[in-house]
Amino acid sequence: MKGRIEGGETSKAGLKGHGANRGLAILDLVFRVVAGLSTLASSIAMGTTNETLPFFTQFIRFRAEYSDLPTFTFFVIANAIVTGYLVLSLALSIVHIIRSGAKGTRIFLVILDTAALGLLTAAASAAAAIVYLAHKGNTSANWFAICQQFNSFCQRTSGSLIGSFVAIVLFILLILMSGVAISRR
Amino acid sequence: MKGRIEGGETSKAGLKGHGANRGLAILDLVFRVVAGLSTLASSIAMGTTNETLPFFTQFIRFRAEYSDLPTFTFFVIANAIVTGYLVLSLALSIVHIIRSGAKGTRIFLVILDTAALGLLTAAASAAAAIVYLAHKGNTSANWFAICQQFNSFCQRTSGSLIGSFVAIVLFILLILMSGVAISRR
Repeated sequence: MKGRIEGGETSKAGLKGHGANRGLAILDLVFRVVAGLSTLASSIAMGTTNETLPFFTQFIRFRAEYSDLPTFTFFVIANAIVTGYLVLSLALSIVHIIRSGAKGTRIFLVILDTAALGLLTAAASAAAAIVYLAHKGNTSANWFAICQQFNSFCQRTSGSLIGSFVAIVLFILLILMSGVAISRR
Repeated sequence: MKGRIEGGETSKAGLKGHGANRGLAILDLVFRVVAGLSTLASSIAMGTTNETLPFFTQFIRFRAEYSDLPTFTFFVIANAIVTGYLVLSLALSIVHIIRSGAKGTRIFLVILDTAALGLLTAAASAAAAIVYLAHKGNTSANWFAICQQFNSFCQRTSGSLIGSFVAIVLFILLILMSGVAISRR
């Protein structure tokens, strides 16, 4: 008896939910495009950063690049991977607009989205920790605030974090939206 | 017609799925206890770390604490918050063992689990970036490897990361298991 009632609910909810699910699927596509552009911009902004100071000594070359700090290299690679994943996931996202009842592929995307979110959060927060150190330095550890010398380098690296954090927020919304779409069927 | 077939599937899967869902709910409880102990251990290990070197000068006191580095403070706070959340979530986890068909509370827990995973990933990877810097230093930025002096401080902080990363893996498994339990109903 319980099974039959649930069945009736499913068919009714199926008719009502299809339109709403299509709306969610279109929003999903838009969010993926925006998130992809954000991570691409982050990756390029960080990857092309370098600054050479207009003075030098015999021993030290005052030049700063993203690859001087391994954390920034990780940041660029992670953003590039997530951008690539987002471009590939657009195909499935378009399939979800056409077939708004699909469930298996949605669960597949939620799992990959969660993995991408984890990778991006790790990269962005590690880079943020280093950027904070570059801005403020640390007197206890005798780490100097290199931003006092490398001003434009610091502004560029700080700015490139924004794209990643925008993408993180979008990923959280994407996962919640997929959850709603899956549980509605 | 489609609705009626789905209804039949639901009632059959409901009878079969209840036992499996109870198994998943018990595993959920165990994972939450282990994850809570891991984050608690991380928090305490990092929070009680300090080392005073057996020599000092007039100007510099060679003492290292976790609170010297803001990232480590964030790490301790984030781990404490996640521990508190895990303790509170045990109540709902026990409810899921008894009422293995619950759906709304499971979705509620998945959302909070994802938030906790994000917080923990951010804290652990930021702390890992700083620990890496403390071990290796950075010649480009003139940041010295403080681990050469503060040996036991560094070992303790590095070790305390393990608990957080164990908890991150457990959270990912928890979210996947909840996803399976929700989609099975």
